[in-house]
Amino acid sequence: MSIRQTKLVEELIPESRPEPAAQDGFKMFNRIVDWITSERMQLINITDRINEIVRKSGVRDGLVHLQSLHTTTAVFINEWQDALLHDVRSFLDELVIRDNGWRHNDPQYSDCERKNADSHLRGMLMGQSLCLQVRNSAVLLGTWQSIILAEFDGPRSRSVSVQVSGV
Amino acid sequence: MSIRQTKLVEELIPESRPEPAAQDGFKMFNRIVDWITSERMQLINITDRINEIVRKSGVRDGLVHLQSLHTTTAVFINEWQDALLHDVRSFLDELVIRDNGWRHNDPQYSDCERKNADSHLRGMLMGQSLCLQVRNSAVLLGTWQSIILAEFDGPRSRSVSVQVSGV
Amino acid sequence: MSIRQTKLVEELIPESRPEPAAQDGFKMFNRIVDWITSERMQLINITDRINEIVRKSGVRDGLVHLQSLHTTTAVFINEWQDALLHDVRSFLDELVIRDNGWRHNDPQYSDCERKNADSHLRGMLMGQSLCLQVRNSAVLLGTWQSIILAEFDGPRSRSVSVQVSGV
Repeated sequence: MSIRQTKLVEELIPESRPEPAAQDGFKMFNRIVDWITSERMQLINITDRINEIVRKSGVRDGLVHLQSLHTTTAVFINEWQDALLHDVRSFLDELVIRDNGWRHNDPQYSDCERKNADSHLRGMLMGQSLCLQVRNSAVLLGTWQSIILAEFDGPRSRSVSVQVSGV
Repeated sequence: MSIRQTKLVEELIPESRPEPAAQDGFKMFNRIVDWITSERMQLINITDRINEIVRKSGVRDGLVHLQSLHTTTAVFINEWQDALLHDVRSFLDELVIRDNGWRHNDPQYSDCERKNADSHLRGMLMGQSLCLQVRNSAVLLGTWQSIILAEFDGPRSRSVSVQVSGV
Repeated sequence: MSIRQTKLVEELIPESRPEPAAQDGFKMFNRIVDWITSERMQLINITDRINEIVRKSGVRDGLVHLQSLHTTTAVFINEWQDALLHDVRSFLDELVIRDNGWRHNDPQYSDCERKNADSHLRGMLMGQSLCLQVRNSAVLLGTWQSIILAEFDGPRSRSVSVQVSGV
């Protein structure tokens, strides 16, 4: 990043003026959502379910926090397109090799019978929690952004805790 | 991580005593910030802009949440140093190969004309949202921490939604 | 992700009914926790310390936000098992090669004497902040989830800022 590049970044005057700070009462709404997955690595579009919970929460502006309760899963954002989802899975497959002499899979070092070191490393890399803004009683998402729950060690039953907070 | 290592971690007595929980009114402040980028992969230091918004928000202590509204971008923290920024770009270039037979770039599977599978994978890996603490009406950052907006499919116009909340 | 896969995802009826939105007073509690690390790459289980702070905060339901104040560290979730922690370290060692001709380590481009480009890239990839839910005055964690502070450029003294907010 040279000084030249930085200068080329032009700051736009924001179209929307800043809104006054809200001072209403603070609200919080919690819910656990469950899924049964069907494959070892599987991507699930959970956008609609999260939006449904946000609508029910009564929170107009604030944050929605998603936390998967399992180490071998992840929650992240990407475009929901079949070809790209195929690429996501093959990228993660190559980035973390399944059989790489992991100690977690070796009975000499570990009592884990699932031999899922790769699943743990993928979950760790992609992250199990995600925080997004709530605006006008909906999750704020760009045109191409979907919320994706990734299963890295299925099939399993999986739970995501959803907390909506704000005003 | 052996037991030996864990024992070697010495917990320091914190210098600052815990502060009493604040009970003031909860505030929230939202603003969208826009940038025009000039290169395909570009790193932009947005620390000052975010601090400016935090100051205007009237929030003294709380959270500032940044969310890029685009899948082929990311928001993260690192030191702002030219040599390191060069390394960041070459690392991400190598980690996600641009031409790797991605289906998202293949007209047989995808109608995406931007052929930007690598941009999507980089954005997914680095994350499009970032939550940081606000202390004393400023973003809490360590000495070497800067907030970086990464463009992975420029040049484009890009928007980041900023939400400041707290007391 | 084919349509077939998506259909196979069965949505479970949640066992716990949604709780009514809380409308109590908003609380916030801040504390800095310090550690002295003993190795260049080291993983530290900070779950108990974070739970202790959450208990002291008086917050029953809300969020706990952790932010390491150093670029060459990270905070993330994984299972705390010796064999797996060994795999985590060897995975990160291989993913970001220490001597890779990084400019940040080259006196021709950089005045950094620590030659720690790899530490920066690992910290950036894994993230220096983590937000988790607080439920019933404890950090919400699945059975196998532990909160891990990663040192990537030790031995050093390291600080994590912890903010608990909610009702």
